[in-house]
Amino acid sequence: MNRLYHYPLSPFSRKVRLSMAEKKIEVELVEERYWEQDADFLRRNPAGKVPVLKMGNRTMADSTAICEYLEDSHPTPPLLPNGAEGRYEARRIVAWFDDKFYKEVTAKLLGERVFRKVMGTGYPDSTNVKAGSRAVKYHLDYMAHLLDQRRWLAGNDMTLADFAAAAQLSCLDYISDVDWNRHEVVKDWYAKIKSRPAFRSLLADQVPGFPQPAHYADLDF
Amino acid sequence: MNRLYHYPLSPFSRKVRLSMAEKKIEVELVEERYWEQDADFLRRNPAGKVPVLKMGNRTMADSTAICEYLEDSHPTPPLLPNGAEGRYEARRIVAWFDDKFYKEVTAKLLGERVFRKVMGTGYPDSTNVKAGSRAVKYHLDYMAHLLDQRRWLAGNDMTLADFAAAAQLSCLDYISDVDWNRHEVVKDWYAKIKSRPAFRSLLADQVPGFPQPAHYADLDF
Repeated sequence: MNRLYHYPLSPFSRKVRLSMAEKKIEVELVEERYWEQDADFLRRNPAGKVPVLKMGNRTMADSTAICEYLEDSHPTPPLLPNGAEGRYEARRIVAWFDDKFYKEVTAKLLGERVFRKVMGTGYPDSTNVKAGSRAVKYHLDYMAHLLDQRRWLAGNDMTLADFAAAAQLSCLDYISDVDWNRHEVVKDWYAKIKSRPAFRSLLADQVPGFPQPAHYADLDF
Repeated sequence: MNRLYHYPLSPFSRKVRLSMAEKKIEVELVEERYWEQDADFLRRNPAGKVPVLKMGNRTMADSTAICEYLEDSHPTPPLLPNGAEGRYEARRIVAWFDDKFYKEVTAKLLGERVFRKVMGTGYPDSTNVKAGSRAVKYHLDYMAHLLDQRRWLAGNDMTLADFAAAAQLSCLDYISDVDWNRHEVVKDWYAKIKSRPAFRSLLADQVPGFPQPAHYADLDF
């Protein structure tokens, strides 16, 4: 059985969970408090981060390398377009969310509001929270700009770019930090992706000490 | 003509320069002081970072997406192995150097010793410099561990993983921050990659205020 070591509110774990579910690859989820740097876990991934995927006798780390592996080894349904240009655009947007959005928004909002408490590293830093709240607006505007020209973020087909974005946004939505009314086109996009069967497992996530808000799992939010 | 907006001591620019040179794709280099956030440059890449590649009428950003694009559009010579497993391993190591090595070593050593001066953001923070000097040893040990089992970092063929590593290490070597005598196997690996024609342009780089040390361009260092 495939096994994914993950954390429910890790956007990088969620990106892999969405890809596997969309490709109908069964996987057992094992919650990993990776910041405790358990020796067994560090043996599985010397980088000390989730997600880590065990598939057969292979143990794999790094969400981007894992998603590319899933694409190479389980090409149906494809999560990257066919041509080099389309693939570039999807990967550029994946990197945008994994790097820029994560650093500017997720790390600042989720990092301060949830992870500080969970990891026991003190009170939220309000400067970071304010910076994250400002930055999320700019990113939602950028998404609206893309979605005004295309059905999905990287083109007219759903790709890994949509999963990378939804992985970050769904974590923030769990703590009610996304203003879905800012752009109708972004809300419609999230409603479409949220209603996919691949999303169900994310909507069932529960984090002790942080009860799920009512709108989080509601498809008609 | 293809044009790459880069900065000489940007490891991510160097990774793209190495890939393009290895694939014999001609490109004009344009030095970009990206931290000045010039409006023209931000129009080319809203993420505000180098490298940015202009190829025909396409403008591309994000070094990982660019390298994958080059692989898709110019597959010869290949810089990723054939099978899904080999490709995974190469991409994992690329991410290791782009993310972990960069954050733990390059940002701390090059960031403090060079970029602070170039960008005018004050004096080096000695805590960061010390942390970077400690971390580089651990990474050199990890490379030796890999190279004890393989001819190149990701297997028996040279891949993008070697370019990602050499891109970071060559920047540090420019400021004499790599102890090549720590592991003979790592020194041999660097000597091999440094003597490739693709490396020549990197060895000619000059940064005002930071004269090239004698060993930097010496193939017999």
